[in-house]
Amino acid sequence: MKVSVIGMGAVGTEIVGFLVNMSEVTEIVAVDKVRERAEAEIWDFSHTTPFTYAKNPRLVAGGMEDTQGSDIVVITAGAQLQKGQTRDDLARVNSAILRELIAGVERHSPGAIVINVTNPVDVMTQVMLRASSYPRERLISAGTLIDTARFLRILSEHVRIDPKNLYGYMLGDHGATGFIPWSLCRVCGAEVDTFCRQNGLPLVDREAMRQQTLDAGYRIFERKGNTNHGIAASVFRIIRAIEGNEQSILPLGVLLQGEYGVSDLVMSVPCVIGRRGVERILRHEFAPEEQAAFHESERHLRALRALV
Amino acid sequence: MKVSVIGMGAVGTEIVGFLVNMSEVTEIVAVDKVRERAEAEIWDFSHTTPFTYAKNPRLVAGGMEDTQGSDIVVITAGAQLQKGQTRDDLARVNSAILRELIAGVERHSPGAIVINVTNPVDVMTQVMLRASSYPRERLISAGTLIDTARFLRILSEHVRIDPKNLYGYMLGDHGATGFIPWSLCRVCGAEVDTFCRQNGLPLVDREAMRQQTLDAGYRIFERKGNTNHGIAASVFRIIRAIEGNEQSILPLGVLLQGEYGVSDLVMSVPCVIGRRGVERILRHEFAPEEQAAFHESERHLRALRALV
Amino acid sequence: MKVSVIGMGAVGTEIVGFLVNMSEVTEIVAVDKVRERAEAEIWDFSHTTPFTYAKNPRLVAGGMEDTQGSDIVVITAGAQLQKGQTRDDLARVNSAILRELIAGVERHSPGAIVINVTNPVDVMTQVMLRASSYPRERLISAGTLIDTARFLRILSEHVRIDPKNLYGYMLGDHGATGFIPWSLCRVCGAEVDTFCRQNGLPLVDREAMRQQTLDAGYRIFERKGNTNHGIAASVFRIIRAIEGNEQSILPLGVLLQGEYGVSDLVMSVPCVIGRRGVERILRHEFAPEEQAAFHESERHLRALRALV
Amino acid sequence: MKVSVIGMGAVGTEIVGFLVNMSEVTEIVAVDKVRERAEAEIWDFSHTTPFTYAKNPRLVAGGMEDTQGSDIVVITAGAQLQKGQTRDDLARVNSAILRELIAGVERHSPGAIVINVTNPVDVMTQVMLRASSYPRERLISAGTLIDTARFLRILSEHVRIDPKNLYGYMLGDHGATGFIPWSLCRVCGAEVDTFCRQNGLPLVDREAMRQQTLDAGYRIFERKGNTNHGIAASVFRIIRAIEGNEQSILPLGVLLQGEYGVSDLVMSVPCVIGRRGVERILRHEFAPEEQAAFHESERHLRALRALV
Repeated sequence: MKVSVIGMGAVGTEIVGFLVNMSEVTEIVAVDKVRERAEAEIWDFSHTTPFTYAKNPRLVAGGMEDTQGSDIVVITAGAQLQKGQTRDDLARVNSAILRELIAGVERHSPGAIVINVTNPVDVMTQVMLRASSYPRERLISAGTLIDTARFLRILSEHVRIDPKNLYGYMLGDHGATGFIPWSLCRVCGAEVDTFCRQNGLPLVDREAMRQQTLDAGYRIFERKGNTNHGIAASVFRIIRAIEGNEQSILPLGVLLQGEYGVSDLVMSVPCVIGRRGVERILRHEFAPEEQAAFHESERHLRALRALV
Repeated sequence: MKVSVIGMGAVGTEIVGFLVNMSEVTEIVAVDKVRERAEAEIWDFSHTTPFTYAKNPRLVAGGMEDTQGSDIVVITAGAQLQKGQTRDDLARVNSAILRELIAGVERHSPGAIVINVTNPVDVMTQVMLRASSYPRERLISAGTLIDTARFLRILSEHVRIDPKNLYGYMLGDHGATGFIPWSLCRVCGAEVDTFCRQNGLPLVDREAMRQQTLDAGYRIFERKGNTNHGIAASVFRIIRAIEGNEQSILPLGVLLQGEYGVSDLVMSVPCVIGRRGVERILRHEFAPEEQAAFHESERHLRALRALV
Repeated sequence: MKVSVIGMGAVGTEIVGFLVNMSEVTEIVAVDKVRERAEAEIWDFSHTTPFTYAKNPRLVAGGMEDTQGSDIVVITAGAQLQKGQTRDDLARVNSAILRELIAGVERHSPGAIVINVTNPVDVMTQVMLRASSYPRERLISAGTLIDTARFLRILSEHVRIDPKNLYGYMLGDHGATGFIPWSLCRVCGAEVDTFCRQNGLPLVDREAMRQQTLDAGYRIFERKGNTNHGIAASVFRIIRAIEGNEQSILPLGVLLQGEYGVSDLVMSVPCVIGRRGVERILRHEFAPEEQAAFHESERHLRALRALV
Repeated sequence: MKVSVIGMGAVGTEIVGFLVNMSEVTEIVAVDKVRERAEAEIWDFSHTTPFTYAKNPRLVAGGMEDTQGSDIVVITAGAQLQKGQTRDDLARVNSAILRELIAGVERHSPGAIVINVTNPVDVMTQVMLRASSYPRERLISAGTLIDTARFLRILSEHVRIDPKNLYGYMLGDHGATGFIPWSLCRVCGAEVDTFCRQNGLPLVDREAMRQQTLDAGYRIFERKGNTNHGIAASVFRIIRAIEGNEQSILPLGVLLQGEYGVSDLVMSVPCVIGRRGVERILRHEFAPEEQAAFHESERHLRALRALV
């Protein structure tokens, strides 16, 4: 298993850290436009490998040519969101960068599964789908997986239960129009209000919790200038599902081609992930207000896509 | 963290294996009525510790006095189910053994959390609750956790999704009257039939799947004379939830005192597990047919309890 | 990564357990001459996969045809050592079994690395090398790795230091003529006697410690009728070194062809293990008494080989 | 197990990451003089906990009062080395900061083991030993553990063997006078030159390799402005040895009181690490040139200590 990570910013670097410390990947390639940056990260990581319990993967800092034959390529390159900037502003800046980049990725690893993390993540994924021959199941967006993690964490604090025991998603857009389909959200198998009522907990203010989820990234951003742990863990979660052929359900951005009544747009919906990337796109019948929210996400993403 | 395992049969030994290989426990004590058996297992396990990636816990084979000050005590002692024997037959044989045993456990580790695995597991737990001063939150039965694992595995094969992504339980009795509350069972947040219909899968035959779950242990038993991997993993799951103070939901056998309309009987219901053992007993309103099944479990367990 | 384990006795089963619980292997195939036995083990293991933290590998119980395309094949099939029986007695019984078996293994997985665990382990490996086309770097014997683990454990108890911090081997024969090259044994980088003298510890009685190492298996065997944890952990250690392309040094049985002045005999010497199996056979100049012990091992193994 | 990390710079944050992702610690407290910084890191880390395989520790961002009752406290606070600055310059700046800080640490966690990472790490540890009542076995310096890791990594590339299979240290000073006692360095149990000669490898240029080791940090620093992965992994290695009561040998900075002929100075020598911190300080008789190098380290550290 060979994994390449393009872009050694805070997120890309932390993804490499997860791979070095917690995976069984045998070769990890770090690429950055500033090659010295990638070298420094790889050298620094190489000093973790002499410790008991550490793995000994092959660690490479290099150029695109070193990614040759990767099983998975993670793309974190491009400009990062700056204070005051919107995800829309980023779209224009990053689409040119990624169009060129995906050509190089494909030339060296046409059989890879490509996970895009560069924002605005769904639209940038679509830009790369157009600029390459990757099928939709192998060029995917990290989408609303991090939003889902934030939502479950916030909900877990409300019900005081480990978030891995809760079930729910944020879907649609990894941005302001992302929405929570509450009809699918379960605590101990029960609908949230029912669970809270039966177990002596205050009811959830749904719109407030959605807003808190959407704000979670910004609150971190304001205080430390970026977010990296949650998003890197999300990408590592996707990699493990692929590496282990898990058939796990993860809400990721995938090119819809008729599913959910949407055509030719990358949106986040629940997908089954395994060794072939997106193995299945799962279907739901949303409640009417959820359907409306989904369409708002769709409208927003179509407008954003029109910019690039 | 010190964990003692009483009974070095196939299940107790495999629990020690999980602790040695996969936990951060610093002291593991193995006790068996045949002390040489416990010694042999511990010596054998000690030869795993020189390998890279292995931990170096203190490994002790001993008598009850060596369990002194344990944080967790696992009880797997007593007669095992023989071919042709029912779980009921075991009740009479094992209750005398466990009454004496729990006195020794409590003398040495009054502050421990005690997990009972000896069958019939719920009734034997109740026998020990009566014969000791342990509060119900710290003397618990492994209950229907293994049945739940079997059910989720079988369901996962039907829907072709990693079982950790599914949500459901078998509750009530770890035996023939165990039941599946389908109203709480969810695949990707959706009710099972709805999920299958929307995703092009055949519907689940609920009674057949329940029967298949109940038979799973017997099918293994017939072929190899015991079952150990699944049940040992179940107990290790409980230990991790305690050790990590996880606040995870696990269906375990706990003494009901009014919950679900049941008094003074150990039955399996969803519990929140953390550093103090059972932190909360969760509540549900079962559907009518589930309520009926729950009462059948109750009747069965009361009858069994009357034997001991 | 696909790993097949042939033989579902106590050792083979525990190797499957390590793979299920602690590796990133995506497919595990269990084969036993009693197919129902393999099925029962695999079903039982499948019930561990629904738990949080568990992986979801493909678990297969099958016949030789299911091992098709394995990356690693572990052989534990054949008669086990019985009380009163010597490793020599086993040689005659098992060589016929393994000659046939390796033909089937090679037909289905000619590119696999084959790890032999069936005793007498070095001679049986040689039997299979002759009966197949596997090169010596891809058909290897678990050799003295378990003896080395036992030795380091016993030494660690003497110096009261985690055995992973000690360095040493038992080499030659996985049997009564195995020997410890003390000139290579180090505690904290120092020669053992020097270390003990400088750190206020009694000196090591070298012959007694060698004997204690050789007896360790028998002492376990007497008490529980087999040994499995240590040997299974040894094999798993080899698998991890291969899977992760670690370039780790492990003392394994490899066909010597001139190295150490020995030709055409499988003996245990320090090997570098990686994705291609034995990547290098390391060289040493033994001290004269070590050289003598090595030759005694050689004589013993040649005599044993002559029986089959 | 409760671990507090003081200072949320790149190193402190990455240590928290190791604890969140790879330990069984139940409570992690992050403290920074800019409280919002600690909050942002903790919130960001909290979004990793909803993923399968993730733990659910209690995550706290707070002030010194939240560290109350910690089992381990890691100190990374203080000014970081700036380009052009020497480790000596830092000594003056950081000693005042740490004198005040250790008083607060001790007030809240008098029974903790304190690991200092703030540079110049050995002298700063000594400053805190004087300003507190912690015994030397429970207030230790990360010392030359990271230098040792760098050395083993560089040596591993020369001999093409996993660094966990090599044995050696850098000792004395975590700085320009650090030295490698080659008499204790072993590859596969053999002295390095002997190993290289017998295995067809070029001999090691010892002084060049020492210099390369000392430069490793600077080369990273020049390219990315800090080093964090290696040093964070070093500290995590110490924490695991304590948490697991491993009795592992790690070269750490400990207050010498007569050992190695040195009194009242914190220097890095091989220590046995377990639940009580430094369980034993191991002894060696260095070769004459090693002894000379050790004394140079001593002189340097005494001079540096005189500044604060």
